[in-house]
Amino acid sequence: MTAGQPRRASPGRPPLQDNQRERVISCAAELFAREGFENVGVGRLAEAVGISKAGVYHYFRAKQDILDAIVVSTLDGLMDAVVAATGEGRAPRDRFVSFMTAHAAYFEANYWAFTAMLVGFGGLGSRAKRDAVVDQRDRYEGLLREIIEEGVETGEFRPVHVPTASRAALSMLNWMARWFDPTGPERATDVAARYAELLLDGIGLRAGARAHAAPREARRVVSRLEA
Amino acid sequence: MTAGQPRRASPGRPPLQDNQRERVISCAAELFAREGFENVGVGRLAEAVGISKAGVYHYFRAKQDILDAIVVSTLDGLMDAVVAATGEGRAPRDRFVSFMTAHAAYFEANYWAFTAMLVGFGGLGSRAKRDAVVDQRDRYEGLLREIIEEGVETGEFRPVHVPTASRAALSMLNWMARWFDPTGPERATDVAARYAELLLDGIGLRAGARAHAAPREARRVVSRLEA
Repeated sequence: MTAGQPRRASPGRPPLQDNQRERVISCAAELFAREGFENVGVGRLAEAVGISKAGVYHYFRAKQDILDAIVVSTLDGLMDAVVAATGEGRAPRDRFVSFMTAHAAYFEANYWAFTAMLVGFGGLGSRAKRDAVVDQRDRYEGLLREIIEEGVETGEFRPVHVPTASRAALSMLNWMARWFDPTGPERATDVAARYAELLLDGIGLRAGARAHAAPREARRVVSRLEA
Repeated sequence: MTAGQPRRASPGRPPLQDNQRERVISCAAELFAREGFENVGVGRLAEAVGISKAGVYHYFRAKQDILDAIVVSTLDGLMDAVVAATGEGRAPRDRFVSFMTAHAAYFEANYWAFTAMLVGFGGLGSRAKRDAVVDQRDRYEGLLREIIEEGVETGEFRPVHVPTASRAALSMLNWMARWFDPTGPERATDVAARYAELLLDGIGLRAGARAHAAPREARRVVSRLEA
């Protein structure tokens, strides 16, 4: 747990006071993600940050407010990162790939907060979901839908069912919080790039392409090399 | 909560004693899924079943054993259902669609147990995962990989990266536990069929097909109709 180490205030950084609030958030994210929101008391959190319980309550009225802060700032940061990466004026295909890889890069860089948001929130996630958070999530999904919609309109994409395509992409990205190992050899962006390629080009050969398919034996060799 | 209603013993059903064990499991699944495994005590569970705490302990030594029973029986039942639905001798494309829709049908028919398995298990799911459960899960993923592999070998599928394609499909199915509403108008199998079609055919038009694409205006109309 690196979040327990004190940080120096340095030029261009927020004052120490704000850093302490950030440290509460970052410690809480890791604890919530590892152990579940319900299982982490404020006393336990205060100990991890290296401050008193009163210190935690100086920044947050209740534990729920810390989780809310994690969710809101994670969704805000994700939106900013992905909007920047998918700038308009490029082909929908490129924007789609950028959406997925920028999401994965943000996920990996903010692994604990992201995981706390997605899996640390026990049960069906039905409690204390504020309208603002739902709005934020909808705007995020809306950006992806716009990219797919644009591709369908320009004829670069097939006339797919846009909400299904968008949900499919986000499901693949979201589920990474359940299996991705940030200490492992693979980068999240590599996984996301493969997912994007798969969603764009599909698994199946289409009728037209099938006529030109490589002979069976050649494909068998390729598939062995890749497996 | 329907699980609290007593069931009659009927011909062809297991004796009442076994039904009571089943009722503990089914009540526990719903409670774990709704409120989180950590937040449901054995007393609370006993009350929901309508028996004493000692009654619960007659069937299970500990609460963890109930969750284990839910996970094992859900994975067993899922495997049986999906193996039956994807019988060999059919084209990989058909088997792939059957895999996804059979999974979705089983998910919807066993909604609480499935959800308890996937989301009720708080945190990163790193604790008490027995080798047997991991084996079971790997065999399940192995079945899907075999289907995709077969399609690649016969040339019906592109030479995709099989583990990525398999994980993509399972991510889309698994994430349904987070958003699917079993009381809503849509059936899980319909969602899964759309996902399968999307993964098989992809979003993008391929280079060959692009030359024959419908004019931009026509596609725009189609996409509006579908959105």
